[in-house]
Amino acid sequence: MSEGFEAALAAAREGLAQGGIPIGAALVRGGEVIAVGHNERVQSGDPIAHGEMAALRAAGRQRTYRDTVLYTTLAPCAMCTGTVIQFKIPRVVVGEARTFGGELELLRSRGVEVEVLDDERCAEMMADFQREHPELWAEDIAE
Amino acid sequence: MSEGFEAALAAAREGLAQGGIPIGAALVRGGEVIAVGHNERVQSGDPIAHGEMAALRAAGRQRTYRDTVLYTTLAPCAMCTGTVIQFKIPRVVVGEARTFGGELELLRSRGVEVEVLDDERCAEMMADFQREHPELWAEDIAE
Repeated sequence: MSEGFEAALAAAREGLAQGGIPIGAALVRGGEVIAVGHNERVQSGDPIAHGEMAALRAAGRQRTYRDTVLYTTLAPCAMCTGTVIQFKIPRVVVGEARTFGGELELLRSRGVEVEVLDDERCAEMMADFQREHPELWAEDIAE
Repeated sequence: MSEGFEAALAAAREGLAQGGIPIGAALVRGGEVIAVGHNERVQSGDPIAHGEMAALRAAGRQRTYRDTVLYTTLAPCAMCTGTVIQFKIPRVVVGEARTFGGELELLRSRGVEVEVLDDERCAEMMADFQREHPELWAEDIAE
């Protein structure tokens, strides 16, 4: 398994340990993890801090993202998908899309390469979280 | 002119006065401005802090956005468009779409009502900024 994916999963678990929503992401360039992040809705009351967004914020200003890969434990929502499109990140590796389908077709329609790992650890972690905290999960996806 | 739009424009001007990219936004509920924000790429080195995103962050956690309107001085990029879609904000009022076309068609295709004011003050402010700081503008839209 890649270092980027393992970093995203570790970030998700860290978020869970903090009482947060367990979704993590990592931005990778040239095989090196340059930033990680996890959902921070609970921890900092920030509704835009999904895992992917938190990783991109942590990466700071970048001249380009065309040479990067974004790893995330869960299929990106419309916000994170729009961000990948806007930042011109060419490739997204998704832990799982079972517990939330995300906007994979929109990503692909804009030329982003999407790989879904269908990782059991990610799917089990999210399914447990959604069952235990349905109100928090609904809030995070604005349902 | 609405209070929401004037608040977005004031936020953009405040960002400009700080040496930042002059794009502002305001989130309104029931005619009342509940949060404002402006682009913070320069001020805080945060690439996800477009004006719309900064306003949504400032608003904090909300139970719903279905009763809100988002005002922004410039047509929303793909990131901010995806966020409007994800948060289910039903209506976006845009200062101008002359200096940047944004993703207005994607917004409309997802059922978001979009009004473009074509405001001269917004268009002049952005045209001046793009001419004076082409490298910063290119970075902000990842070109």
